[in-house]
Amino acid sequence: MTERGDRVERRPRRRGGAGGPAEPAVDRSRSYRHLTNPFEPLKVFSDDAVAAIHAAALSILENQGMRVLLAEARQRYAAAGASVDEASQMVRLDRGLVAEAIATTPKDLTLYARDPEHDVPVSGRHVAFAPTSGPPNIMDLKRGRRAGTFEDFCNLMKLSQSFEVLHVLGGGVEPQDVPVQVRHLDTTRAMLTLTDKVPLVYSRGAAQIADNFELIKIAYGLSDEEFSARPRVCTVINTNSPLQLDIPMADGILNFAAAGQVLIITPFTLAGAMAPVTIAGALTLAHAEALAGLTLAQIVRPGAPVIYGSFTSNVDMKSGSPAFGTPEYAKSSFGAGQLARYLGIPWRSSNATASNTPDAQSAYESQMSLWGALLGGCNFVLHAAGWLESGLSTSYEKFMLDIEMLQMFAETFQPVGATPADLALEAVAEVGPSGHFFGCAHTMERYRNAFYAPLVSDWRNFGQWTEAGGHTATERAHGLWQEALARYQAPRRDPAVLEALDDYVARRKAEGGAPPVS
Amino acid sequence: MTERGDRVERRPRRRGGAGGPAEPAVDRSRSYRHLTNPFEPLKVFSDDAVAAIHAAALSILENQGMRVLLAEARQRYAAAGASVDEASQMVRLDRGLVAEAIATTPKDLTLYARDPEHDVPVSGRHVAFAPTSGPPNIMDLKRGRRAGTFEDFCNLMKLSQSFEVLHVLGGGVEPQDVPVQVRHLDTTRAMLTLTDKVPLVYSRGAAQIADNFELIKIAYGLSDEEFSARPRVCTVINTNSPLQLDIPMADGILNFAAAGQVLIITPFTLAGAMAPVTIAGALTLAHAEALAGLTLAQIVRPGAPVIYGSFTSNVDMKSGSPAFGTPEYAKSSFGAGQLARYLGIPWRSSNATASNTPDAQSAYESQMSLWGALLGGCNFVLHAAGWLESGLSTSYEKFMLDIEMLQMFAETFQPVGATPADLALEAVAEVGPSGHFFGCAHTMERYRNAFYAPLVSDWRNFGQWTEAGGHTATERAHGLWQEALARYQAPRRDPAVLEALDDYVARRKAEGGAPPVS
Repeated sequence: MTERGDRVERRPRRRGGAGGPAEPAVDRSRSYRHLTNPFEPLKVFSDDAVAAIHAAALSILENQGMRVLLAEARQRYAAAGASVDEASQMVRLDRGLVAEAIATTPKDLTLYARDPEHDVPVSGRHVAFAPTSGPPNIMDLKRGRRAGTFEDFCNLMKLSQSFEVLHVLGGGVEPQDVPVQVRHLDTTRAMLTLTDKVPLVYSRGAAQIADNFELIKIAYGLSDEEFSARPRVCTVINTNSPLQLDIPMADGILNFAAAGQVLIITPFTLAGAMAPVTIAGALTLAHAEALAGLTLAQIVRPGAPVIYGSFTSNVDMKSGSPAFGTPEYAKSSFGAGQLARYLGIPWRSSNATASNTPDAQSAYESQMSLWGALLGGCNFVLHAAGWLESGLSTSYEKFMLDIEMLQMFAETFQPVGATPADLALEAVAEVGPSGHFFGCAHTMERYRNAFYAPLVSDWRNFGQWTEAGGHTATERAHGLWQEALARYQAPRRDPAVLEALDDYVARRKAEGGAPPVS
Repeated sequence: MTERGDRVERRPRRRGGAGGPAEPAVDRSRSYRHLTNPFEPLKVFSDDAVAAIHAAALSILENQGMRVLLAEARQRYAAAGASVDEASQMVRLDRGLVAEAIATTPKDLTLYARDPEHDVPVSGRHVAFAPTSGPPNIMDLKRGRRAGTFEDFCNLMKLSQSFEVLHVLGGGVEPQDVPVQVRHLDTTRAMLTLTDKVPLVYSRGAAQIADNFELIKIAYGLSDEEFSARPRVCTVINTNSPLQLDIPMADGILNFAAAGQVLIITPFTLAGAMAPVTIAGALTLAHAEALAGLTLAQIVRPGAPVIYGSFTSNVDMKSGSPAFGTPEYAKSSFGAGQLARYLGIPWRSSNATASNTPDAQSAYESQMSLWGALLGGCNFVLHAAGWLESGLSTSYEKFMLDIEMLQMFAETFQPVGATPADLALEAVAEVGPSGHFFGCAHTMERYRNAFYAPLVSDWRNFGQWTEAGGHTATERAHGLWQEALARYQAPRRDPAVLEALDDYVARRKAEGGAPPVS
């Protein structure tokens, strides 16, 4: 009559000792390489409301327009028929132009890696995870919070390579010990040599983008034509909400679209601050901005791959502080997913939290963000591992907590068998009243692969856990990321390719690199 | 071009200072008293698979049966037409008898409190939360883990009274400093005087149940007939999986059903231990056991209120340790919800974790449990606040972390407005490119109630948070439960009623109380 976990411990037939949770799950070989979400997406809007939001976004673009700071981008819009006012830099798009752009945006999208085994489908029911991108600071339990370094960046690439549940790369942390004009050279080379996953790079001006593309071509052994024929690298385009597209972002759209590479167009809209205080209002504004970016991409190259990015949360109205993983964040995600599906375009969301430390708040806010994304039907979750402090820090321990959570979602996506053998009537008959199933044939045939074997979670009883030091999940995560780094193995690379990459980087450094555009 | 929470801080128009997160949300008066879940339940089984599981459960009851340890219960089953073998104590139920019982089980259910404002609907789309029930130990950050006391029990009742998001009570913690034969007298009196919410009591024999019912009648001023006319108190009936119903549990079914009070019939099935290693197998067994209990209740009193309880998780196959909030747990929840809806009966689930401390693991496992329950369409979540260590401890800090999570779900259930005013076209036109929405009329009219104001979460920036001590969410929760206790106000009670309750308890103590039945 008690609902307690000690009941089972009265009659265990133990297999292989106490088994600490950090043991590798040798019995289990489930692949997390390709994930498919079996659940019907949740909705917060009626179909009519989705259509009304889309119509409202079109009217914003038609009547008010978007301020576009890059002259070349305004010229491209104008050449395609948009109304451009050079004095105010405002670009107005009629709904026909936007509809044409939506029509030419690919509905099916696969990101191609060097090795086809690492190709990542990101449309339909497919789900891809990419680690955190962009924080200036790094954090770990021992050294605290400090400026990110190139060593940290490389560590995050090694960790990203180590866990199959991460499908695409992210910028990890800003290596502030590398000068900005050559930083992209070192980081992209590190991505291409330390991992074999699809890279994600920043759009910080045409020259940096050209360098990044050249490094990928060298690493993959591709001609210009071969490179541009398939989506192989992603970048995030954030509009400056409300209604502004700045120079590096417009430049990123022009260059990525021209090369047929993937634009994740993501308005960053905090309701109550740079977006209306209502969820529907913030999503309407974000939708308008995403459509403006998508339209520019399709003007440059009809068929250019675009992912519809959403990043709508709220601020604390008492302090102006941003918040993530809130109820409003989750509902905004459900709504953004509806808008992406209305367009038929792959959708990107995030695993975000405002917590300053990898604690229980960081876990429940991340869970709210992840359920919001994944139950909303998300295809691409950026910042999926490591994000902390509203994106101002990457945390090594949070990275491991997030990997655990992502693997749990990957397992939740696996179908539940319901064959007669799964219903186990024979096992129930064999075991009988008040028996147990540890040793029965039905269990013996399945136990190795029956359940998820955790990475961080500790399921030992209180006594065993206390004897082992009584560590929190965050403290255990501190050991786990170091163990993962110690186990890391670099992917094999042709020495000639490595040399060619080094030569390119050395030459471009000698030429002074390419300062970021702002 | 960065996705960081610092962007908004460059241009805040602050309202009322830095505003620590522990400030009461004076601006906000959203009620959590009646919650309705707007989301379509998730499914892991096809409709055919649900029907197959139901059919398999019926065949278990028909061919194998359930061992029922209480002679009176076997007699009631036999009198209704079941096949009973007294030597083996096995009771076999044909599917006609079970179908009749399902037909007479109420599909609509409301729990009635003394004050109609605290009535709790628990069917259809309604959702109710009840705190943790049953752990022997209590835990807090300062004093660690120790045996539960009556003071702790009372504290948990006061905390349960303090948060509107808890709708029903739970047993909190076992007060081990109160002798078992009078423990029910002290705890039920405490429930009835310290709170005005619907009580949940244990089924530990007919004499204790009779005492509990008498205390409720005294507190509410009800005759026997008035008491039995409406569901006013709940109890949890755990079968002893596999396929056994023990004496106190069978006794509970007989006595609660006879009085028209609410049976939450909950097989506690850990896949791989006391249930088959497959999710479908564990659910089939649990479904059979729930149907056996439900049938006994309907034999005793057709129309007796029953909640279909599910508690299916898995064990760690390496160690035999139980696990909660796992991917398998979440999927079992979705499946159990489908089975409950197949019967048309209200469904109960739990907020469970195996973590030994209120850390990040406890948060992400609880989130998995809660999303599993609530996205599965759950009506009644027991152990919703405070559960830790696989149910062996109640934690004060976890209680507060859980209240935060429950409130976040309550907010997530609130509809998202999509009127033209919500779409905020005028505000976007007013603010214009690269402006901000802090001061616009659209924001000013709505900001007080726009967003959830958190209880535990700290959204301050890293500098402010560090200056304030750099506390984790768990450390903040330690202060918050003490503040809530300090603010607690007892509901008003008629002194005559209090005296009558005291008299009853004193008399029954003098008579020796009622030892629990096992």
